[in-house]
Amino acid sequence: MIFTTNKAQSVAGLGESALIENIQDWLKAVTPQPPYGIGDDCAVIEVSKPTRQIITTDAVTFGQHFDSSVSAKDAGAKLIKRNLSDIAAMGGKPEHAVLALLCGPDTSLEWLKAFFQGIAEISKPYKLRIVGGDVSALPIGQFSAVLTLVGTADTMKLRSDARIGDHIYVTGSLGGSILEHHYAFSPRLDEGAWLARHSACTALMDLTDGLAKDLRALLPQHGSAYIDLSAVPIAGDAHKLAQDSKRDPLEHAFCDGEDYELLFTIHGSTPAADFEQQWRQSFPSLKLSRIGKIDRVSNSGHLLIDAVTNEALPWTEGFEHLKG
Amino acid sequence: MIFTTNKAQSVAGLGESALIENIQDWLKAVTPQPPYGIGDDCAVIEVSKPTRQIITTDAVTFGQHFDSSVSAKDAGAKLIKRNLSDIAAMGGKPEHAVLALLCGPDTSLEWLKAFFQGIAEISKPYKLRIVGGDVSALPIGQFSAVLTLVGTADTMKLRSDARIGDHIYVTGSLGGSILEHHYAFSPRLDEGAWLARHSACTALMDLTDGLAKDLRALLPQHGSAYIDLSAVPIAGDAHKLAQDSKRDPLEHAFCDGEDYELLFTIHGSTPAADFEQQWRQSFPSLKLSRIGKIDRVSNSGHLLIDAVTNEALPWTEGFEHLKG
Repeated sequence: MIFTTNKAQSVAGLGESALIENIQDWLKAVTPQPPYGIGDDCAVIEVSKPTRQIITTDAVTFGQHFDSSVSAKDAGAKLIKRNLSDIAAMGGKPEHAVLALLCGPDTSLEWLKAFFQGIAEISKPYKLRIVGGDVSALPIGQFSAVLTLVGTADTMKLRSDARIGDHIYVTGSLGGSILEHHYAFSPRLDEGAWLARHSACTALMDLTDGLAKDLRALLPQHGSAYIDLSAVPIAGDAHKLAQDSKRDPLEHAFCDGEDYELLFTIHGSTPAADFEQQWRQSFPSLKLSRIGKIDRVSNSGHLLIDAVTNEALPWTEGFEHLKG
Repeated sequence: MIFTTNKAQSVAGLGESALIENIQDWLKAVTPQPPYGIGDDCAVIEVSKPTRQIITTDAVTFGQHFDSSVSAKDAGAKLIKRNLSDIAAMGGKPEHAVLALLCGPDTSLEWLKAFFQGIAEISKPYKLRIVGGDVSALPIGQFSAVLTLVGTADTMKLRSDARIGDHIYVTGSLGGSILEHHYAFSPRLDEGAWLARHSACTALMDLTDGLAKDLRALLPQHGSAYIDLSAVPIAGDAHKLAQDSKRDPLEHAFCDGEDYELLFTIHGSTPAADFEQQWRQSFPSLKLSRIGKIDRVSNSGHLLIDAVTNEALPWTEGFEHLKG
């Protein structure tokens, strides 16, 4: 359990200084010595040559991004992977991170240790170093952690460079992430880096708030997305959810959020079959779906259009973070 | 008021996408265009030459770091200044920051606008750019913001390089910050940069958790701090608090925390009078106090010693973030 009524086993029982020593110990394999790691007013990063850095920040909050059904290790790994997915969406390479811990005094030390083990385990293969952080208090029963990640990107693709005529692709399958995928996903770093280098790729982002919402961010002025619904990859968990929700599995694929897949566009003049063959050679086990095309905005002014019927898609709302 | 029962005037009424557009507008003067500012998966920082970066992260939480008696503008400015104080403690220069907003759905838009105005106003003179961020939800009535700041430092002083024989100094005056100073302080950036370049300065940090706690972080192995209590600069607000608390004003100066002054050491072979004259020439209006010396650890093993009586100081606890 994330919180404990046994004060001796809580962060308040341990106190801040001892907690920070514990965190250094838990992160040992992925945190350098000060001043390059935890222990001074700032952490130091030596930048050895001119470079292009990318920076992103993301949180996990108990009750919002995970609950008691998710293990502490998976919650810690999710914090890192959410940020890695943003790095993947720029075609970048992760390098350094700092972590701000905001926790109720009753946060369990045992739980927190496993949370940091999750962080250390997922950071290792990516050579991500946790170089510093901050600890502060929240009310009883509350827990948030905010990670800020600095990476590098030699070449990259922005959201804003998609053009009319481009093909639209997504990786993996969409929807139903609430059942498991929201913490069990793999950030698409290799795929993002490959796309950033690929001359045919025009724009790239990761899917976090649902295709219905995120796709809009990719559309150029005067452009609408014409979607071939039969090509949209629906996750098994979206079908499972739809049985209970009585909603269309496609609605789950469009609106659920937390897919952490890549959404990108390929220049319209590129033969799609050639591109897809290159993809399969590089990433034989990750499904790629060409779900539609960007074309001139429809007469109706709608941005998401069914390519077969030419009617507006009924699913317009993605995941809304600030629900009333 | 930070929270509102009028949904139309809350962040939930506005929704996330419109909120982010508002934030871009509120920060206009201090946020560059994407990809160098808010609007893509990551923000881009072009590093034009090899350099030494420093990175720090700090939070402000409603009910912990500010309450309803602090204006929204002052709360926003405090978030920036807390981080600037860490940069000052390394003798660095602030450059880029990302901001993670965690807020209850009932957070008032009017309040939030003023919070960001406070951020923009304090960022401007320091040429600090807010380049990205994240918005996520907390339960009703909760608000936290986490800022991560990246700066540069050509020369710098760490905490770990103080030596036996060094003089101990503090800037400004200490204690009683809860009355006003905890948000009304000025981060000591010019002074920190000056000290980082000064050959006599051996170690440097900022005072956030109280002299009693922070001084320990500066002591080398086998070193104790011998403090001349008559030289410790007690803030007027520490005297004011002491009248009500019936505690010694010195106890407030040692234990209250949130002073955001600099604590540093000067090599023991440096004539103190010469150093202090240089200081006065550079910073005529900021009080400097030589409060003691580092010497061999006392027979009693205590780390903080009254230099006159040779007895352990009675104040050993600084500010504890994780109270039970």
